[in-house]
Amino acid sequence: MARTGPDGAGEPVWYGWRRAGEEARLPPAARELLVAGLGFADRPSPPVELAAVRLAPSKLPEPARADLVRVLGAEHVRTDHEWRVRHSRGRSTLDLLALRAGDASAAPDAVLTPASHDEVAAVLAACAEHRVAVVPFGGGTSVVGGLAPRRAGFAAVVALDLRRMDRLLDVDPVSLTATLQPGLRGPDAEALLAEHGLTLGHIPQSWEYATIGGFAATRSAGQASSGYGRFDAVVVGLRVATPVGDWKLGRAPASAAGPDLRQLVLGSEGAFGVITEVRVRVRPLPAARRYEGWRVDDFATGLAALRALAQRDLLPAVARLSDELETAAGAANAHAAGESTTGAPGDAGGCYVVLGFEGEPERVRRHAADVAALLGARGARPLGAEVGEEWVRGRFHGPRLRDALLDAGMFAETLETATFWSGLGELYGAVREALAKAYAAAGVPAVVLCHVSHLYPTGASLYFTVVAGHSEDRSGLWAVAKAAASDAIVAAGGTITHHHAVGTDHLAWLGAEIGDVGVRVLRAVKQALDPAGVLNPGVLIP
Amino acid sequence: MARTGPDGAGEPVWYGWRRAGEEARLPPAARELLVAGLGFADRPSPPVELAAVRLAPSKLPEPARADLVRVLGAEHVRTDHEWRVRHSRGRSTLDLLALRAGDASAAPDAVLTPASHDEVAAVLAACAEHRVAVVPFGGGTSVVGGLAPRRAGFAAVVALDLRRMDRLLDVDPVSLTATLQPGLRGPDAEALLAEHGLTLGHIPQSWEYATIGGFAATRSAGQASSGYGRFDAVVVGLRVATPVGDWKLGRAPASAAGPDLRQLVLGSEGAFGVITEVRVRVRPLPAARRYEGWRVDDFATGLAALRALAQRDLLPAVARLSDELETAAGAANAHAAGESTTGAPGDAGGCYVVLGFEGEPERVRRHAADVAALLGARGARPLGAEVGEEWVRGRFHGPRLRDALLDAGMFAETLETATFWSGLGELYGAVREALAKAYAAAGVPAVVLCHVSHLYPTGASLYFTVVAGHSEDRSGLWAVAKAAASDAIVAAGGTITHHHAVGTDHLAWLGAEIGDVGVRVLRAVKQALDPAGVLNPGVLIP
Repeated sequence: MARTGPDGAGEPVWYGWRRAGEEARLPPAARELLVAGLGFADRPSPPVELAAVRLAPSKLPEPARADLVRVLGAEHVRTDHEWRVRHSRGRSTLDLLALRAGDASAAPDAVLTPASHDEVAAVLAACAEHRVAVVPFGGGTSVVGGLAPRRAGFAAVVALDLRRMDRLLDVDPVSLTATLQPGLRGPDAEALLAEHGLTLGHIPQSWEYATIGGFAATRSAGQASSGYGRFDAVVVGLRVATPVGDWKLGRAPASAAGPDLRQLVLGSEGAFGVITEVRVRVRPLPAARRYEGWRVDDFATGLAALRALAQRDLLPAVARLSDELETAAGAANAHAAGESTTGAPGDAGGCYVVLGFEGEPERVRRHAADVAALLGARGARPLGAEVGEEWVRGRFHGPRLRDALLDAGMFAETLETATFWSGLGELYGAVREALAKAYAAAGVPAVVLCHVSHLYPTGASLYFTVVAGHSEDRSGLWAVAKAAASDAIVAAGGTITHHHAVGTDHLAWLGAEIGDVGVRVLRAVKQALDPAGVLNPGVLIP
Repeated sequence: MARTGPDGAGEPVWYGWRRAGEEARLPPAARELLVAGLGFADRPSPPVELAAVRLAPSKLPEPARADLVRVLGAEHVRTDHEWRVRHSRGRSTLDLLALRAGDASAAPDAVLTPASHDEVAAVLAACAEHRVAVVPFGGGTSVVGGLAPRRAGFAAVVALDLRRMDRLLDVDPVSLTATLQPGLRGPDAEALLAEHGLTLGHIPQSWEYATIGGFAATRSAGQASSGYGRFDAVVVGLRVATPVGDWKLGRAPASAAGPDLRQLVLGSEGAFGVITEVRVRVRPLPAARRYEGWRVDDFATGLAALRALAQRDLLPAVARLSDELETAAGAANAHAAGESTTGAPGDAGGCYVVLGFEGEPERVRRHAADVAALLGARGARPLGAEVGEEWVRGRFHGPRLRDALLDAGMFAETLETATFWSGLGELYGAVREALAKAYAAAGVPAVVLCHVSHLYPTGASLYFTVVAGHSEDRSGLWAVAKAAASDAIVAAGGTITHHHAVGTDHLAWLGAEIGDVGVRVLRAVKQALDPAGVLNPGVLIP
């Protein structure tokens, strides 16, 4: 299970999402659509060579290094070029553009790989003493600047890579819980649980690389979270190494013993401590699975149908609705690639719905029948299993397509939000308009796609994808567009992030969401748990 | 809707739970069972007259009173005897024994009745300035000493009774949410929602008196929370008046914008601020309801069956299992009262299960059939609808029976806990033994009954009732027994409270549950939000 190093099997390329050896070419049909169809300029823009990536010499002071070596051993205090480059940033498009341009100025001065809770605790003590900032690092898939701490005021910065803490510590088959170490990646966690006939069912798009600790620290939501629950809903226990001591939480599924402090750790993004154990609810591996596609007349009709499912406790494990543009783009892409089972691009218009049912066969059958009756009554047309399976096959494809778009000098990035159902239409319009206006103002052609993928009885999330043609300053243009979208989200009453976390990218908008009082609370907790302020400084807390 | 005063319709008697005019007699059959059957001594022990209740003169300093009158008006700063007596304590048995003996030494110096968020905020400012402790007061039903603050260090103590904040502020029929003021009692909230065809479905045993604000501040669970959700699971938004400012939370059902701070307010027991608005998930009024009884061979079999329901997503809205003694006591009581439809006491042994299904008729029918199949396969025998309806009719009866037992010089009290399924059997045995031993050591005959009423896929709650014969020092004996039970809960890995909150009664055990780090966090948040420390001092925070 152990990942041996950044060049081991299963690691992404250092400047992107795909794995070394994977195809990175923009499919000819997609290029045709973007360039001929939408007028996108392109310009081949390969990344620099790894050896050409610039980073400053490690500033880790010798006394700090010596203490850390004493705790971890010299082989677990790494300062070599590739390790530092690979831990310099997350995987937002801004991160990738910087890396591709050879800028690793954000790189940590060293990468630490502790093997236990006690080693993590000892590292935190040493770093507090030497005023070394510590960035907890799981899969490195943050898309919100969660891995780039403020350096000012610190002697150095280290990344605390938890990859060696990758064990399944305990399975409780009676309570249906499992205790996992934080460095376990999604597939590895599932493989270990599958040996016991169990599944966690938490599958965000970052699943291939992202870790249990990261899921917890960022309040992750998975593609199947309508059925299996957001990560913050499946965590029943936590252990956290903090600079002021060992912290264990979770004696029962629910409690009235004061505030639920687990929910203060979840989403704390490494600013309050390092999560070293996570006890989660697990389920038996589903005996049946059924994925299927539907088409509804338009986005509003689809939203109303999904809302009805959510409010009648009929949500399947996966339930997604693409807006008209995302539907057309998906259909065009599939059609051009010769994979489509749903007709020519745009031949029917409307919006795709993908539903995924998992569980006991008879209940899956009945559940799907109930859902079909509700959707049919609202004018939705079934597209069959193949559309569902197409989605399953492509569920991790998006970020790879981004690699190819960046290679072509184009641009792609996503952002997401959520609100209550009554405000969702306004939020959708406001964010789309803000993004489109920003690109139009710069004279850069762009399309804004959207889907709904996380549903609740009282509301839902919106996930936007922006794809744009080449521009001189892709990062600067996105920064403008993202700021406009964030302003629009706040004005429309949405949350600044439904499942990507705050990091540094959302920091400027968090205060509007949780208020001055909320900011005061975060600062007080930070001060209480991390008096030296070494934990992921500059992240989460305004 | 407004409650006009402590003597208004719907108020309990000042020393107990029943309403004035309600029958308080111990049923002859119950007395026969307890005295002849179990050897319980009794001794008529009526409460003193209200006029004879002792309390110290109000210590509210004149400058503070003048400021509070300026904010609220003189009629909302009350210092008369009955109001102070009625706000002196909650409704634990220790509280009632003290009141019945004429001891209202814990009474506040005044009772304030603000009408708005702004008035609450102004009261907090005045109290912080004059060092007056503030006890937020909803229904007054705390059973954990949540309404008796530490006086030391304060010029005076006031109760902040939220009864005038009793409006339904908003219904969002699209999102299926409602925004409620904190002083709304359970029945009044349901009545207002029913005008819109909606229900909250939150029905703890304290429902007749307890309020929305109290549900939120204590993380209440209702009798139907397996179906409708614990209160902390249905709250989507909050407004809190804190000494450092107005705090609004909740822009979406779920978010990754840092820790979920709503979960820090829920369970804060008035120590961080006063909850002035609560936005909750609501549902359409159920078109069908079906309550039914089952009998299983023994408690362990029943636990396994309920666990199977919870882990297969088959839980009905209400699902309860009584242990052998509670089953026998219930059957004996019903039989003696001539109400039994389930045979003579003990004629079949085993344990009762009560299930309650609510929702759309066809889904209720299918759900009940699925559950019946599962239970039948585990040897459970159906007892029919009448046993279910018996439970519904008697669902608020327990605390009234306590009044009668106290009148007879006997004793009754409850406590509750929860843990994961794999530890539930050990927890059950440990708490029973601790309680039984404490009474046996004092030579006082007692019975310990238990039921399971809140179920989760990963665990469940245990709710214990102790009924004992007369003893010289009923309060002192319970204090010993409760401490032994609390020690046993901590040792067995349970939570010190699943739905009654911490108050002052559980304070000594909270540190073992949330750790030194958790205590440090609570103190830091308290200091940040209530720098003068006037909010419910002595409660919640060790």
